[in-house]
Amino acid sequence: MIDPHVLQRLSATLVERKGAAPESSYVAKLYAKGTDAICKKVAEEAAETIMAAKDGDLRHLVYEVTDVWFHSLVLLAHFGLSADDVLAELHRREGISGIDEKNSRKE
Amino acid sequence: MIDPHVLQRLSATLVERKGAAPESSYVAKLYAKGTDAICKKVAEEAAETIMAAKDGDLRHLVYEVTDVWFHSLVLLAHFGLSADDVLAELHRREGISGIDEKNSRKE
Amino acid sequence: MIDPHVLQRLSATLVERKGAAPESSYVAKLYAKGTDAICKKVAEEAAETIMAAKDGDLRHLVYEVTDVWFHSLVLLAHFGLSADDVLAELHRREGISGIDEKNSRKE
Amino acid sequence: MIDPHVLQRLSATLVERKGAAPESSYVAKLYAKGTDAICKKVAEEAAETIMAAKDGDLRHLVYEVTDVWFHSLVLLAHFGLSADDVLAELHRREGISGIDEKNSRKE
Repeated sequence: MIDPHVLQRLSATLVERKGAAPESSYVAKLYAKGTDAICKKVAEEAAETIMAAKDGDLRHLVYEVTDVWFHSLVLLAHFGLSADDVLAELHRREGISGIDEKNSRKE
Repeated sequence: MIDPHVLQRLSATLVERKGAAPESSYVAKLYAKGTDAICKKVAEEAAETIMAAKDGDLRHLVYEVTDVWFHSLVLLAHFGLSADDVLAELHRREGISGIDEKNSRKE
Repeated sequence: MIDPHVLQRLSATLVERKGAAPESSYVAKLYAKGTDAICKKVAEEAAETIMAAKDGDLRHLVYEVTDVWFHSLVLLAHFGLSADDVLAELHRREGISGIDEKNSRKE
Repeated sequence: MIDPHVLQRLSATLVERKGAAPESSYVAKLYAKGTDAICKKVAEEAAETIMAAKDGDLRHLVYEVTDVWFHSLVLLAHFGLSADDVLAELHRREGISGIDEKNSRKE
């Protein structure tokens, strides 16, 4: 099993870069562009995930899902949030039985 | 720090449910509908993430990002992949310095 | 050549239905649900357009592009706009030479 | 009422440019990049439409919907289709009464 703490290390790095000069990194530039630019990247990577799935290209699919997660962590950091917030929400849902979770979903 | 193994437990549960009867759970029904239905959910949740960000509604944002991650894990499981594949890709990227990663990105 | 006024008749019908009871039609229900529900439909149909293109299914592609246009007309009507606003913007762009239009686009 | 034939003139121009050298125009470059690049633009413009709607910025909303229509016409042209195919589908739907159309829609 892969060490999952990599997610939190990445998230912490993304939070740290919020104060950096825009030209210092890809992510710092994205923060400087603001919410719409980050959201646009999330949409783009979601579209690329769908296209990789349609191609049945597994390597590309993993790459694009990773990009979706990466840019959603950038979006969370932009709003002062982190991977821990998503993980806490997953813990909360884990406490709800499968059937209840199913019922609580409005399709 | 939240225990991140919840991600791998969820992923393992999603893989297990692949053999289940469609009516047994929300996820089993989604697998039965196939690739397009799962991809459509990824697109929907990405759109809801963007709308939550535009609203500046942090609680809703975390909820929708969690839904994006959840449905991208369903998509990975549908193709025989798991959270570990994304985590391994994050480990691989962690080995690349920030500047190199920036340079390796087109755009 | 197909009579293109169908677009404006549809748009006028969509504007008319804004005052109708939610249960009276699909569109009236969508207006009642509000901006997010309409936006979610635009995102969904865009995702289905992409999947039809990836399948190379031409009939399905036309159907999904029509759904994207339909729901974007609903979104415009929701904000007091119509097909004429899009057509006017197309006329405005037609006045700009191809090369200038290219240059005016920030990729 | 705005002359709607602008849509078909645009569509015809987009079809014409399919044979042009990639560097000759924005659209010729997009065709050369292929299906995924065009689909990615459709997804991007759909995301920008949603963000303009959330901002309640009407001028921007019209601009982004026009971009969605423009890029969906590029996608259609890429597959040998045109605005007429969408207009014909709208004519077909116009023949179906509102209530039947509602009933024929799943969800």
